Amino acid sequence: MFYLIGLGLGDVKDITVKGLEVIRRCTRVYLEAYTSVLTVGKEALEEFYGRELLLADRDMVEQAADEILKGADVSDVAFLVVGDPFGATTHSDLVLRAVNAGIQYRVIHNASILNAVGCCGLQLYNFGETVSIVFWTDSWKPESFYDKIKRNREMGMHTLCLLDIKVKEQSTENLMRGRKIYEPPRFMTVAQAAEQLLEIVENRREQGEKLAITEETVCVGLARVGNDNQAIRAGSLREMASSDLGGPLHSMLITGHLHPLEVDMLKLFSDPEGLNSLKMTDSSTYTS
Amino acid sequence: MFYLIGLGLGDVKDITVKGLEVIRRCTRVYLEAYTSVLTVGKEALEEFYGRELLLADRDMVEQAADEILKGADVSDVAFLVVGDPFGATTHSDLVLRAVNAGIQYRVIHNASILNAVGCCGLQLYNFGETVSIVFWTDSWKPESFYDKIKRNREMGMHTLCLLDIKVKEQSTENLMRGRKIYEPPRFMTVAQAAEQLLEIVENRREQGEKLAITEETVCVGLARVGNDNQAIRAGSLREMASSDLGGPLHSMLITGHLHPLEVDMLKLFSDPEGLNSLKMTDSSTYTS
Repeated sequence: MFYLIGLGLGDVKDITVKGLEVIRRCTRVYLEAYTSVLTVGKEALEEFYGRELLLADRDMVEQAADEILKGADVSDVAFLVVGDPFGATTHSDLVLRAVNAGIQYRVIHNASILNAVGCCGLQLYNFGETVSIVFWTDSWKPESFYDKIKRNREMGMHTLCLLDIKVKEQSTENLMRGRKIYEPPRFMTVAQAAEQLLEIVENRREQGEKLAITEETVCVGLARVGNDNQAIRAGSLREMASSDLGGPLHSMLITGHLHPLEVDMLKLFSDPEGLNSLKMTDSSTYTS
Repeated sequence: MFYLIGLGLGDVKDITVKGLEVIRRCTRVYLEAYTSVLTVGKEALEEFYGRELLLADRDMVEQAADEILKGADVSDVAFLVVGDPFGATTHSDLVLRAVNAGIQYRVIHNASILNAVGCCGLQLYNFGETVSIVFWTDSWKPESFYDKIKRNREMGMHTLCLLDIKVKEQSTENLMRGRKIYEPPRFMTVAQAAEQLLEIVENRREQGEKLAITEETVCVGLARVGNDNQAIRAGSLREMASSDLGGPLHSMLITGHLHPLEVDMLKLFSDPEGLNSLKMTDSSTYTS
């Protein structure tokens, strides 16, 4: 059996009892190591599970999937994914390869950022399409995520923005020279995401476009959701740009129409007067 | 501390290790008993946890929240929710009451149907607004969910349809006489949801409306997601109406634009020729 097991979002103890039992009886256990991170490292997981973990980076999953699946028809192999196996990144490719090789598979679900963001009080029902915000470079500043947020806002829907992660990236020089030397990992912060979004707002304003988002739009910054030291901050987009939510991972929510109960929840995470004043200027916000 | 703990979707072992540890040390443990169900009952949970559970039905959570929170400022009280505490039903009200009473709270997340449906291979990124389909009566046949699905479809987005649960409902007679006698619980099946949707499609056709959904639209029926005996079935809306996916809980997905990898995954859950023919008639479906 090939098991895809979600690890949840926080630390070693966020795995399910079922998942832990499977890990302890598997022949080999892989840890997917490129789409997300826990607040603890591989060593802490190995100690808690009492098992050695094999790191599976993007290259390995794409190029050596057969190696991962080897023997899973006669013994148990597990593939561990931070969050849920079908959360922010799907592992359909591994599933299809398993099925084609006559290997049975099973999924052991867990929380993913896609549902855990509900902890800030915004109703998951009322989210539109999820967007990804990537690190801009000097020459590449895509704005497509703005248009998706805009579309969601126009329908009164909230937007979850997943923020870029750069793991095992090569510098242009190392890439061209074929040197497998990697840059330190980078994780986009809420402040960085908000700055990029503010730049787009400014561009659109200059173009005379009717703005779906302004500096005053109510946003929520989240960091390390599900962990004991998680941080949640509600405020204007402008406030997000100067926020400091600490270490990774960060996510940002752009609100749509707010229900009174949602406003009450967001107030738990904002300056005492912050959201009261915002209600006056942000048209999509609930006004009582 | 007041703990909101998600139980996941399957059986007793879908709780996280962290959640289990908290339950075992709490003074009182409540089990929320109205928005969802596991495939096992209260007794199985009590045996696995080694703890007595206090059932909290809707009346109690709404009218006796103070009782639930009592003493949580000086000792630990847990409130267990099937899925994730902020999944399909939010428990913001309990959180706000706790905060107002000066009680600290913590959330222990888990999988919810909102992310676990990713197991069928549809990308969670590409879902629009979630809709609820309620049981129609002879005199009350709301169609608003159709218009939300239509809006999602027009943007190429998938739709998760949460299907109605009737727990502790009273007959009109018992309600009028104030008798607390409850009807047996009812859980909407994929077939029932599809039938209601087909009736709306027929109505709209008669009204000459341009159809966003037809009998041939690709849908996915899911039952008992996350459990060993889960069932997933991909096929046309017409096929869904005659499907039998067994016991509760059921959910239904209406696809939007399908990526080739999504089609490949759905084929795992459909008749061999089913989705090939559908590609020809359903305009939103990916055609290679």
